[in-house]
Amino acid sequence: MRRFAVRAVVSLRRSILDVQGKTVEQALQAIGFPMIAQVRIGKYIEMEVEASSAEEARAVGEEACRRLLANPVIEDYRIVEVEPVPAVAVGEPQ
Amino acid sequence: MRRFAVRAVVSLRRSILDVQGKTVEQALQAIGFPMIAQVRIGKYIEMEVEASSAEEARAVGEEACRRLLANPVIEDYRIVEVEPVPAVAVGEPQ
Repeated sequence: MRRFAVRAVVSLRRSILDVQGKTVEQALQAIGFPMIAQVRIGKYIEMEVEASSAEEARAVGEEACRRLLANPVIEDYRIVEVEPVPAVAVGEPQ
Repeated sequence: MRRFAVRAVVSLRRSILDVQGKTVEQALQAIGFPMIAQVRIGKYIEMEVEASSAEEARAVGEEACRRLLANPVIEDYRIVEVEPVPAVAVGEPQ
């Protein structure tokens, strides 16, 4: 078994009003960013998954999103990256 | 001027305890994911930036992170993607 870094994004569905994003957008415009619009804010989740292959690690990450990390009524999720973790002790400072 | 989708990730510095991530990790292990560890949760921010080039759009996104979106004491940020937005009316349903 190897360890993989799996990175996922969970975001509100396009049809759902993103109140946090709208608030940030207004704040940005107020401090001098009139060129920024359509701000949306989601969650970025990094995890280490022990698996025999990158495909298996991705599948575990997808199931974790489906079962816990995302609310399927209002959120979408996607795995954005899967890469092997260099062999260092877990918890070692970086 | 063109519009670019700029996507940024803001995450706690490695040296900062991620309480939310630790809680999610424990919840995942409790529901049958013993192979998942080292969960960390950050913010994923999408915005549309009006700029003359992708480089300028990236620079605007970085400045927005520096000035508002990230807390530099405890958080790091990075721009993960910059791409042109297809020419559709702003706010058009997708």
